[in-house]
Amino acid sequence: MFFSVKTSEEVLEILKGFSPVGEETIFIGEGLNRVLSREIFSREDLPCFPRSSMDGYAVRARDTFGAAETLPAFLEVEGEVLMGRAPAGAVTQGKAIRISTGGMMPEDADAVVMIEYCHPLDGRTIEVTRTVSPLENVISPGDDFKNGALIFGKGYVLRPQDLGLLAGLGIQNVDAYRKPNVAIISTGDEIVPVNRMPGPGQVRDINSYTLGAFCIQSGAVPVNMGLCKDNFSDLRALVERGLEISDTLWISGGSSVGARDMTVKVLESFDDMEILAHGISISPGKPTIIARSGSKAVFGLPGHVASAMVIAEVFLNPFLSRLSGAAGASGDNHFYIKAELERNIESASGRDDYIRVKLDKRGGQYFADPIFGKSGLISTLVEAHGLVKIDRNTEGLYKGQIVDVMLLRPLKGVQ
Amino acid sequence: MFFSVKTSEEVLEILKGFSPVGEETIFIGEGLNRVLSREIFSREDLPCFPRSSMDGYAVRARDTFGAAETLPAFLEVEGEVLMGRAPAGAVTQGKAIRISTGGMMPEDADAVVMIEYCHPLDGRTIEVTRTVSPLENVISPGDDFKNGALIFGKGYVLRPQDLGLLAGLGIQNVDAYRKPNVAIISTGDEIVPVNRMPGPGQVRDINSYTLGAFCIQSGAVPVNMGLCKDNFSDLRALVERGLEISDTLWISGGSSVGARDMTVKVLESFDDMEILAHGISISPGKPTIIARSGSKAVFGLPGHVASAMVIAEVFLNPFLSRLSGAAGASGDNHFYIKAELERNIESASGRDDYIRVKLDKRGGQYFADPIFGKSGLISTLVEAHGLVKIDRNTEGLYKGQIVDVMLLRPLKGVQ
Repeated sequence: MFFSVKTSEEVLEILKGFSPVGEETIFIGEGLNRVLSREIFSREDLPCFPRSSMDGYAVRARDTFGAAETLPAFLEVEGEVLMGRAPAGAVTQGKAIRISTGGMMPEDADAVVMIEYCHPLDGRTIEVTRTVSPLENVISPGDDFKNGALIFGKGYVLRPQDLGLLAGLGIQNVDAYRKPNVAIISTGDEIVPVNRMPGPGQVRDINSYTLGAFCIQSGAVPVNMGLCKDNFSDLRALVERGLEISDTLWISGGSSVGARDMTVKVLESFDDMEILAHGISISPGKPTIIARSGSKAVFGLPGHVASAMVIAEVFLNPFLSRLSGAAGASGDNHFYIKAELERNIESASGRDDYIRVKLDKRGGQYFADPIFGKSGLISTLVEAHGLVKIDRNTEGLYKGQIVDVMLLRPLKGVQ
Repeated sequence: MFFSVKTSEEVLEILKGFSPVGEETIFIGEGLNRVLSREIFSREDLPCFPRSSMDGYAVRARDTFGAAETLPAFLEVEGEVLMGRAPAGAVTQGKAIRISTGGMMPEDADAVVMIEYCHPLDGRTIEVTRTVSPLENVISPGDDFKNGALIFGKGYVLRPQDLGLLAGLGIQNVDAYRKPNVAIISTGDEIVPVNRMPGPGQVRDINSYTLGAFCIQSGAVPVNMGLCKDNFSDLRALVERGLEISDTLWISGGSSVGARDMTVKVLESFDDMEILAHGISISPGKPTIIARSGSKAVFGLPGHVASAMVIAEVFLNPFLSRLSGAAGASGDNHFYIKAELERNIESASGRDDYIRVKLDKRGGQYFADPIFGKSGLISTLVEAHGLVKIDRNTEGLYKGQIVDVMLLRPLKGVQ
């Protein structure tokens, strides 16, 4: 099987072979971070009438030409534009109508003089001390978006302001990709549920919780299939069921060679299953299996939680983006920051090393301190703020070198 | 009222006067991004028994001392440690027991020789070609966390791996701060619901959706109180009800001076209401009102969506972190990247300017292009990837200057 150990680049290429899940119609009130499955076009001008962008007086700009502090223009006030109403009349020569921000411009008015430059002389007349040009302080129909304009492309991820725009355009429902469902099976004779006191040699299930929360964080829906002993027929039945009800299936493996071999045997027992990778040249996380059953990807993940999480951050994060339909999802969604390395790190060549680091900020600069420790220790991951990649063609990194840190969480407490 | 216009720093200081909301007990399966309201201590050693971190043979290290490729040690194999079980016997002098990763170490064994360095000679004997030192490839009880150790402090924000650790320790439920409830009222005679076709001078409600999604993004729960006309008694009744059912109340104001004055009058009509700020020296977003009723903060936000969102990013984001109990929440939760400015930007002194920018990545570097446009245009915000602050003591920024960009969203499509 040695020949099917893949490089990181090969794995990312393999994952591009999977397609986004189906679509559904969603209400914009539930649209945050959802991914559009179709383009959206404006069906009207926004705004659909000319509006004032200031509090002041709607005027004909030419009636203010030449007006200045020393040479004011005098205009006669004819009422006020009420908010949410059409103006009662037009602005004729030498006239002005009081208007508020957002008010609808009266007919024949083409500019607004800000209230600061208008001084009432009596109940009917104002003194204007500034020239305005045509369209000054006016938002014209379609200034935001014109009728028929492309608003968002397919694969666009919706933010709060984007949902506001859809509301403004009267688009209450949009077509979006479903959130991918991820079936998670946690295997191993030694694993007991979190509510059970472990006996000698037993440990509680960690990976269901870690991977489940990782799915939620990545915009997917975890489907917890429960625990499974290292038993061929039990695991086969769970895999079969998991493939039926999900878009992708993740088996958090026993970490022993025997348990991994069992996972591969189970997968190979399905007629349509194709093993795509049996090992990745990455550390931690090498003993990872990737297979395909029809349109669905199956992952055999290392049992060690730190290994499983590195695989999740490096490969499953872009994979879930891809299933979610996000544009450019073959890429990397992480935030990176630059930090100065606090110690030398050696690295074996021939594999990509991902080093967990703790960050510290001193004098406006980040420093990254490598956390060394067995990948079976969850503490190394809990202490870590990020990961630093050492490329497989590099022998190591030096103290004082500036490195890119892939962030594992918002840097609360570090900044 | 001019005296109560506050600077950004004064506003952030005012917001530190509000306390986190109450606590509740939550299941760790629903704990992602929740904030701990109490310290958590380990109630046992993790792991609670010595485990192998490799596939191989459990041995007494001293039986391998001096072993090498050219001078192997010969050990007699006595069975295998089964996963999830206590080993059947101890390792005595000259013996070895087969063990898998995660298996429980047999008594008197103090090291594991990796399978790669063990060559079976017959059914009973292996040849060991490498010396191991005591505790090599062994995880000792408490190596992750010792019984009684502090695991997480108060105010800690839970990530996937943190939830895994809690599961590993058998901690199914934790005490966390409630998610803050935010009552949102959208005011203005011109505003109609999103499902209504606006008449002349009317526009659809944008801010309820934008602010609601912003709350969700910040870990809070929006409570949509609906629309309100610019009418004293209607608004007063909604404010009263909103204060009863929420932890903080946000009034998205009409953008006119008259509408703002109405909001202030309504707030002042409550006996226990104290106006803390009437305007902030920031652009956009100056016409912002901050008040306090008992323990609850009330915000009168500008009606212009771009103004409201700048206030939300700069002030309401840290405010919600503070209500959520996150440690160090007086700070700024945003990600920043460095980018080269593509154009000069002028700025009036005496106020902090927040410029919306579009980002582009060329040759591994980010470039920030300022978006100019009226704050009444939502398109300026939809196009923006981030905000650049121009401090009120600065007259502007120059093309080619490196600036810090506060990111408004993951940079999908830019990287």
